[in-house]
Amino acid sequence: MTNLKTVLMQKANNLRIHSIASTSKAGSGHPTTCMSAADIVSALFFHAMRYHPDEPHHPNNDRFILSKGHAAPILYAAYAEAGIISHEDMMTLREIDSIFEGHPTPRFAWAEVATGSLGQGLSIGVGMALNGKYLDKSDYRVYVLLGDGETAEGGVWEAVELAAHYKLNNLIGIVDVNGLGQSQRTMYEFDIDSYCRRFEAFGWNAIGIDGHNFDEILPAIDKAKASTDQPTMIVAKTFKGKGVSFLENEDNWHGKPIADEEQLEAALKELGPLSHNGEIQIERPSDVAVAKPEIVEIAPPDYQIGEEIASRSGYGAGLAKLSDANSTVVALDGDTKNSTYAEEFMKKHPERYFEMFIAEQNLVGTGIGLAKRGKIPFVSTFAAFFARAYDHIRMSAISRANIKYVGSHCGVSIGEDGPSQMGLEDLAMFRAIPESVVLYPADPVAAERLVAEAAAHEGIVYIRTSRPKTPVIYSNDERFPIGGCKVLRESASDQITIIAAGVTVHEALKAYDQLKAEGISVRVIDLYSVKPVDTETLLRAAAETNNTLITVEDHYPQGGLGEAVLSVVASEGVKVHQLAVNGIPQSGKADELMDKFGISAKCIVSKVKEIV
Amino acid sequence: MTNLKTVLMQKANNLRIHSIASTSKAGSGHPTTCMSAADIVSALFFHAMRYHPDEPHHPNNDRFILSKGHAAPILYAAYAEAGIISHEDMMTLREIDSIFEGHPTPRFAWAEVATGSLGQGLSIGVGMALNGKYLDKSDYRVYVLLGDGETAEGGVWEAVELAAHYKLNNLIGIVDVNGLGQSQRTMYEFDIDSYCRRFEAFGWNAIGIDGHNFDEILPAIDKAKASTDQPTMIVAKTFKGKGVSFLENEDNWHGKPIADEEQLEAALKELGPLSHNGEIQIERPSDVAVAKPEIVEIAPPDYQIGEEIASRSGYGAGLAKLSDANSTVVALDGDTKNSTYAEEFMKKHPERYFEMFIAEQNLVGTGIGLAKRGKIPFVSTFAAFFARAYDHIRMSAISRANIKYVGSHCGVSIGEDGPSQMGLEDLAMFRAIPESVVLYPADPVAAERLVAEAAAHEGIVYIRTSRPKTPVIYSNDERFPIGGCKVLRESASDQITIIAAGVTVHEALKAYDQLKAEGISVRVIDLYSVKPVDTETLLRAAAETNNTLITVEDHYPQGGLGEAVLSVVASEGVKVHQLAVNGIPQSGKADELMDKFGISAKCIVSKVKEIV
Repeated sequence: MTNLKTVLMQKANNLRIHSIASTSKAGSGHPTTCMSAADIVSALFFHAMRYHPDEPHHPNNDRFILSKGHAAPILYAAYAEAGIISHEDMMTLREIDSIFEGHPTPRFAWAEVATGSLGQGLSIGVGMALNGKYLDKSDYRVYVLLGDGETAEGGVWEAVELAAHYKLNNLIGIVDVNGLGQSQRTMYEFDIDSYCRRFEAFGWNAIGIDGHNFDEILPAIDKAKASTDQPTMIVAKTFKGKGVSFLENEDNWHGKPIADEEQLEAALKELGPLSHNGEIQIERPSDVAVAKPEIVEIAPPDYQIGEEIASRSGYGAGLAKLSDANSTVVALDGDTKNSTYAEEFMKKHPERYFEMFIAEQNLVGTGIGLAKRGKIPFVSTFAAFFARAYDHIRMSAISRANIKYVGSHCGVSIGEDGPSQMGLEDLAMFRAIPESVVLYPADPVAAERLVAEAAAHEGIVYIRTSRPKTPVIYSNDERFPIGGCKVLRESASDQITIIAAGVTVHEALKAYDQLKAEGISVRVIDLYSVKPVDTETLLRAAAETNNTLITVEDHYPQGGLGEAVLSVVASEGVKVHQLAVNGIPQSGKADELMDKFGISAKCIVSKVKEIV
Repeated sequence: MTNLKTVLMQKANNLRIHSIASTSKAGSGHPTTCMSAADIVSALFFHAMRYHPDEPHHPNNDRFILSKGHAAPILYAAYAEAGIISHEDMMTLREIDSIFEGHPTPRFAWAEVATGSLGQGLSIGVGMALNGKYLDKSDYRVYVLLGDGETAEGGVWEAVELAAHYKLNNLIGIVDVNGLGQSQRTMYEFDIDSYCRRFEAFGWNAIGIDGHNFDEILPAIDKAKASTDQPTMIVAKTFKGKGVSFLENEDNWHGKPIADEEQLEAALKELGPLSHNGEIQIERPSDVAVAKPEIVEIAPPDYQIGEEIASRSGYGAGLAKLSDANSTVVALDGDTKNSTYAEEFMKKHPERYFEMFIAEQNLVGTGIGLAKRGKIPFVSTFAAFFARAYDHIRMSAISRANIKYVGSHCGVSIGEDGPSQMGLEDLAMFRAIPESVVLYPADPVAAERLVAEAAAHEGIVYIRTSRPKTPVIYSNDERFPIGGCKVLRESASDQITIIAAGVTVHEALKAYDQLKAEGISVRVIDLYSVKPVDTETLLRAAAETNNTLITVEDHYPQGGLGEAVLSVVASEGVKVHQLAVNGIPQSGKADELMDKFGISAKCIVSKVKEIV
């Protein structure tokens, strides 16, 4: 029987050959970054990890996240060597009809998540590890392979903090320290000690090794597996381009395939032929049963029309009811739970609530990990602070994560805290996320109903909630389907239609009353579904009200409610006038600010009179 | 003469009184977070820092950044105690006509930058410190006061890395470790050692102190000042609400003023009356002269029509020419300089180029700091990765920073690297930044000219560059004013207008040729200025081409070029049809992807024929 080390070395060599071959064929890609990781990847895929080769989504598989996503070719090579994909398929790397993309996406089922925007993988690992340790109570481990350059990303250190805080001993990171970034050497080059000290200072086990020596790799992994209360980072000293003399540790080879035919031949000659010896036995995971989801009907809203209650309070109440109604729903918040009202969930089901502290990138990444492990995460913070995590949100769409984002404190209507706390571009952010749903309740009835809609919907949902107390305007049995809207005021003599959402619905209703008193009849629509938009109702309204609409939003003019309306009526030549926050806001009372920045009832009345 | 310690203690007590009084009057604010910091703030403002009380922008003033921006009341209180603002003005905290906002903004000149979105101040400090040490060669120091909860933010650790890497001994941070976050205790509570170990592991001096004991505060500051090659973090153990017995270290007082009259009275009674003894002498900074800017005319572009050159290459060439023409221009990049071509600047003026590694939040924060110190930073990375720094970008607008952002690798046209690397929402992001300018060159002539326009413009500019090589279409003497556009094809018989930018200009020109061959005449406009948009030209085109426009962009449908056009023609009832990237893209050749995702010449031709 072939010695384990020999087999793993041969497999690693095969991985190097595949990485070069596939990228040279594709004409692009990152072979040298694959080559530094080959021995580690071999040790993980062919020895350390437990998985069912036929079942990429088996709930107890060890999970592997390639945080250094540009090493995608070696990921595919590993699955080829494991016999899970064919060599022929692997060689379709980067072709338009291939699922083996330049950076991994879940179009390839084993990739589970999309990576390639550096510094996100460890957070996703935190989510998966939290799920394993505290929710599924499974013994799967989560392995995350990072590049050294990417550990400059603050998001990595957020994940490091939270993993230590939650004692995620089932999370094992490996940093591939090859000393080279994209355009130059990294800050720390080969200072393995410095890496180890930093991870240790944050509460991890850190093990420095020679990343090309299985006598160090294998014991390190064993030690990491044995940890009972700390995550482990294996810090591996490696060489980019390892295995080919003219590539090894050379500058200027990042992101370059071997294009020159002679060079390619020389490289493959050095590596030798593919080895077909060495049967590997992939260990299967244990058979821990995952609890079946318990889903019952969610309790309905229970408010009085006219009560003054903020939509964010409705969110808290709705989320708490959801927590009782669906055992797969989890909640995460960034130390704002007493403002977003995520704390209502925490009070009911603390075992499914995870405080993620003031670290929004990791907040979102953790949500992605939980979503991929079959939970439905409701991830909340101030709307403005989702901007801190926008790259993670962007990647969550490419990952096709079933994740719900809830941003409170939108708009100038938060008042005196001022612009640093105001979400004024979040509708633009979330509308631009492909396949997203964007919902904006005007009262707590709507908020509760939209929470349920969001949970029932498969895919990314963003719910925008407001801080101020405003009157309940909907009866408790009102429903709010995604893609709908509510026509709140309507008559045969409407001269114009006002389209609003959230706090501006209340301003529009005030404006309606003022205009009516002056003999001007207007239609008022609550566009609670900002994406997708109820095109039919909008076009009908336009047709019935002089082909003219006014949109009014507590948001900047770009990319939000106004442009959402514009984009669906534009081809029909409907006239649309936009009211939105018309400058950088400041501190002040909510009413004063809405007036000063152009979105109050007074401003709406003024605009209507200007047009009709 | 009154003892220094006694004076500083009295001043600190005054600061506590002011913080309570102003927030109680305002009815909102964060008094307890001010009270933990009072002794530190007193030591800094009335002893350690050197500044000219009449000149907030003096180039040699020590700089103070309140990273924990919610402690704004104590910032204003400090300036009141220094005699720089009046007590009456300080008490206008949070009122609509006041410059003393809930979180600091530069409407108050001494604040210099806006803070309040936690975890950004240290990066801004890095920028100011880099300027002082390497550019101005001034001996000013930069003090940054952070909260403990906010050190969970990854952005803080990015700043920590870069500050150590650049040996910023003139940067002194103080963490106010009061153990309490917003909604609960922090992860590390009062473990001062843990904080110190972490900062030390990253290469800082770290000094743990009792933050309420001047016998520890003052020597720590002196030690920090004496550092020659490392930044210093003073880790101060404090109590939130220090000075008032029923507030001190109590849960649930974050963000709450003392509203109850009796409680307010009791609190003020405990603190005692304002002290008016104790003259403080504010040390003046030394008189280092800052070099006068040297600005000459920038060299013109030098290309041949038809040459195949990417707009990103034009950016590199233009930036290099600008570096020769304007000595205040600096460049920063996030380890992508060989892709964005920021390296062209680095080759010419390495003394004004700062590599910021793979850490985009700090990349932007550093840019803000440099901008505030009178430099013009050109900050570059992939367009997609600006999403990582969107909160910093958002805050840079509130800071009114004169900063230029340049995002390369936009759209599906980057090809095989796939969606993780594609900027598809960056036009939405930057359009939604108030007062921003958004520019999108179609060829290297335009790119060079727009670099010059950006440098001449006061305020935030975003330039979007493309990866593929496309033909030079403009002559070298062409000018590209902000707010303009180029009508590339025009005739009296145009049936429709196609509006494009960047790579889609070239697709539109191909479509023009195909349609012409079939007897269909179309207008083609290059909308290189996406914000502000040339409304006049667009309306004229609409009027002359059947009131119908087609927009086509290498960007998602939301918030980009199409909606920019819509927003200016909407009130006129112009019909607009939008072509944009119509799904989550994947790896493939650029041409294949543009076809598959709806923005190629073929798709444009198809759309035109569908409409006319």
